[in-house]
Amino acid sequence: MKSARKTGRKSGKQPDRRKIGQRTLRKIHGDYGLAVLARLDEIAPEMKKWIIEFGFGEVYSRPGLNARSRQIATIAALVALGHTGDELRSHIRAGLRTGLSRSEVVELIMQMALYAGFPAAISGVKAAEATFAQLDAPCNAK
Amino acid sequence: MKSARKTGRKSGKQPDRRKIGQRTLRKIHGDYGLAVLARLDEIAPEMKKWIIEFGFGEVYSRPGLNARSRQIATIAALVALGHTGDELRSHIRAGLRTGLSRSEVVELIMQMALYAGFPAAISGVKAAEATFAQLDAPCNAK
Amino acid sequence: MKSARKTGRKSGKQPDRRKIGQRTLRKIHGDYGLAVLARLDEIAPEMKKWIIEFGFGEVYSRPGLNARSRQIATIAALVALGHTGDELRSHIRAGLRTGLSRSEVVELIMQMALYAGFPAAISGVKAAEATFAQLDAPCNAK
Amino acid sequence: MKSARKTGRKSGKQPDRRKIGQRTLRKIHGDYGLAVLARLDEIAPEMKKWIIEFGFGEVYSRPGLNARSRQIATIAALVALGHTGDELRSHIRAGLRTGLSRSEVVELIMQMALYAGFPAAISGVKAAEATFAQLDAPCNAK
Amino acid sequence: MKSARKTGRKSGKQPDRRKIGQRTLRKIHGDYGLAVLARLDEIAPEMKKWIIEFGFGEVYSRPGLNARSRQIATIAALVALGHTGDELRSHIRAGLRTGLSRSEVVELIMQMALYAGFPAAISGVKAAEATFAQLDAPCNAK
Amino acid sequence: MKSARKTGRKSGKQPDRRKIGQRTLRKIHGDYGLAVLARLDEIAPEMKKWIIEFGFGEVYSRPGLNARSRQIATIAALVALGHTGDELRSHIRAGLRTGLSRSEVVELIMQMALYAGFPAAISGVKAAEATFAQLDAPCNAK
Repeated sequence: MKSARKTGRKSGKQPDRRKIGQRTLRKIHGDYGLAVLARLDEIAPEMKKWIIEFGFGEVYSRPGLNARSRQIATIAALVALGHTGDELRSHIRAGLRTGLSRSEVVELIMQMALYAGFPAAISGVKAAEATFAQLDAPCNAK
Repeated sequence: MKSARKTGRKSGKQPDRRKIGQRTLRKIHGDYGLAVLARLDEIAPEMKKWIIEFGFGEVYSRPGLNARSRQIATIAALVALGHTGDELRSHIRAGLRTGLSRSEVVELIMQMALYAGFPAAISGVKAAEATFAQLDAPCNAK
Repeated sequence: MKSARKTGRKSGKQPDRRKIGQRTLRKIHGDYGLAVLARLDEIAPEMKKWIIEFGFGEVYSRPGLNARSRQIATIAALVALGHTGDELRSHIRAGLRTGLSRSEVVELIMQMALYAGFPAAISGVKAAEATFAQLDAPCNAK
Repeated sequence: MKSARKTGRKSGKQPDRRKIGQRTLRKIHGDYGLAVLARLDEIAPEMKKWIIEFGFGEVYSRPGLNARSRQIATIAALVALGHTGDELRSHIRAGLRTGLSRSEVVELIMQMALYAGFPAAISGVKAAEATFAQLDAPCNAK
Repeated sequence: MKSARKTGRKSGKQPDRRKIGQRTLRKIHGDYGLAVLARLDEIAPEMKKWIIEFGFGEVYSRPGLNARSRQIATIAALVALGHTGDELRSHIRAGLRTGLSRSEVVELIMQMALYAGFPAAISGVKAAEATFAQLDAPCNAK
Repeated sequence: MKSARKTGRKSGKQPDRRKIGQRTLRKIHGDYGLAVLARLDEIAPEMKKWIIEFGFGEVYSRPGLNARSRQIATIAALVALGHTGDELRSHIRAGLRTGLSRSEVVELIMQMALYAGFPAAISGVKAAEATFAQLDAPCNAK
C-alpha cells in the first residue's frame, strides 16, 4: 500500500499537507466534514487549517491503519470522553462512509459502558440515534 | 452468524453467561486475562464474576462486531481515559491476539493525540512499548 | 438482611436477574426509572436490558449497602464526572425516594466542589434545583 | 507588593474574607460576576458564599500571581475540563477585563488542542466566539 | 438545627474556621489526616491551610449531612475521577472511622463500575485492599 | 504583527516547520525537551515528529501569545487533566525558563483546586516540589 502522503518527498520538498488533508477529509467525511469545519472560519481559521493539514493531512492519511478502524477508534474515544455533540455525529457519519454498519456503530458505543460507564454510553447511543434520523430525513445533506 | 449466547434460550432457560464469558475471555485474552482478573479474588470476587459474566458473557460475546474491532474500540477508550496500566496492557495483548499488528496498535494510539491530547497518547504508546517488550522477553507467559 | 437475588440458587438455577432487576429498579426509581430507560427502546434495547439485569438485578440489588447510601455514591459520581443531565436528575429523584432529604442532596453535591471543582458542583446544584422544580410542578409524574 | 488580604491580622482578627472577596470579584468580573453567582441564591446560597469568601477572598486575592495570569490559567483549565458554559464565558470576560486581548484568549484556547484534544479546543473557541458576540451586542450589560 | 460552626457569630466575629477545621479533620481522619497534609508544609503551606479552614472548617463541618454519608460521597467521587492514591486511601480510612464497614466500602466502589467503568472501579477496590492491608499490619499508625 | 513562521511563504513554499519547531522547542524547553521526546524514538518516531513540527513548529511558535503565558496555560491544563508526570515536570521547567518564578508556578497550580478539585491540585504542587528538587540537585542536567 503506497502512501499518498509521501508524494513530493522525492524532490526534497515537504509533501503538500493541505491537499492531502483536504482529499483525506473529503474521502472520510464527504462534504459534511468541510461544513462542520466551516464553523471555525470566523473565530479560529488557523485551527481549521490545523485540523485539515495536521489531523487529516498527517494523522488520518497515514497508511498503517484502515479508515474503518480509525473511525472505530475515534467514535470510541469521543464517547468515552463525553464529546457527544457535532464531533461524534460527524464521526458516526464517517464511520458509515468507511464501512461500518449502523448496528456496528451502536455495538461499539454500547461496549463503552464497560470502560466509561453507562451514562457516557447512553449519551453515545442517543447521538447515534439522532445521527441516523438526520440521515434518513428527506432533503438531508448526506 | 449465529450467536452462541442465545444457546439455551429455546428451553426457557437463561443462557449460561458464565461459561460463555469464560470461553470469550479465553478466546480474546488467553490465560493472561484470567491472571489479570485473579487480582480481584480476595478483595472483590463478585466484581470478577461481573467482568466474566457481564463483560465477556454479555458484551464481548455479542456477534454484531468482530473481536479485532472491539479491541480497537477498547484500546482507544482506555488511552483516551488515561487508564494506561494493567488494563491497557491486557487489551493491547488481546488486540494482537485478535488480529491487530503491533504497528496498528501504535497507529491507533497515536491517533488519540487528536482527541485526548498528546500527553494521553504518549502514555499510551509507552504502555504499548512496555507490553511489546514484555512479550518479547524470554520465559514470558504469553 | 436476606438477599432476594439469591433466590433460586438452591435449585441450581441462576437467579432471575430480569425480575429482580425490575423490582429493584421500581423500588429505587419508581415509574420514572422505566420511563427514562424507554428512550433506549429503539436504538439499543440490549443496553436497556443490561441496565435492568446487570445494573439493577446484580449491582443495586446486592444487600451489602443500603439504598440511600447507594444513591449518595451515585449522585456524587455523576456530579464529579459531569453527567448532569437525565441521569443525575433520575438519581436525585431516587435519592429522595430512598431517604435523602432535599437539603442532604444539595449538601452532598456542594461537597463535590472539593473534589471535582466548583464548576462541576455548580452544575450539580443547578440540576438539583431543576429536579426539585419539576417535582413541585402540578400534574407532575412523580 | 502588600497584600490587601492581610489587613486586620495585626489586631489578631481574621481578615474580612467576604469584603476582600467581593472587592476582588468585582475587580475581576465586574457586575457580571455577581449576576452569574446570583443563580445560586435559591438553591445553594452557602456555595455562593464559598465562591466569594474562599474563591475570591482567599485564592484570587493572593498577591503572588497577577490577575491576567490567573485568568489564563482558569480559561485553560475550564477548556481542558470541558466546562464550556457560563463558567468559561464569565472567565473569558474576566480575561478581557484583566488585560488579555480577544486574540490572546483565542490563542490560548487553541493551544489546548495539544493537551485536551481538538474537540475540547473547538468547544472552547466557539464559547469565545459567543462571548465576544454577546459583548458586541447593543444594550449589552458588560 | 444548631450548627457548631456558627459559634462566635453572636459576638459579631467570624467563626474560628481553623479550630473548627482542625477539630473536624481530627474527628474524621484521626492523626492520619494531619500526617497526609503535612506533605504540603514545604511546597504549599497555604493549600494545607485552605484544606483545614475551608475543606474541613467550612464544608465537612456543616451539619446537614452526617459524616458517614460524606465519606461515601467522597470515596465515590475519588474513584470516579481516578484519584486512587493517598487521597482515596485517606478517605477509605475516614469512611471506616465514621461508620462504614470494610465490605460497605468495597460495595460502593464496585458500584462505580456502572458510572465510571470497570477500570476505575478495579483501581478503587485495589486501593481499598491496600488500605486494609496497611491497617492490619502490625505497628501500623492508625 | 509579523509572524516568524510565515517565512518562506512568499516564495510559495511551506515554512520549514521542522526547523521552526526545533528552534521553538529549544527556546522553551532547552535540552531537556529533546531528552523527554527521545523516549518516543523507538516506539513512535512519527509522534515525536508531530510534537516538534505541529506542536512547536505550528502552535507554540505562533506570535499571538507570549511564551510565559503559554506555559501558564499548559501547566494549568496538565494539572486539571491529571497529567502530573514527565509532561508536567517538563512544562514546569519551561515555565521557569520563560519567566515564571517558582512561587508563581505553585500559585497557579494551587488555583486549580477551584476548578479541578483539591486532589488534582495537590498532585500538581507535589510535582512542582519534585521538579524544583531535581533542579536544585547537584550535577543536574538543567
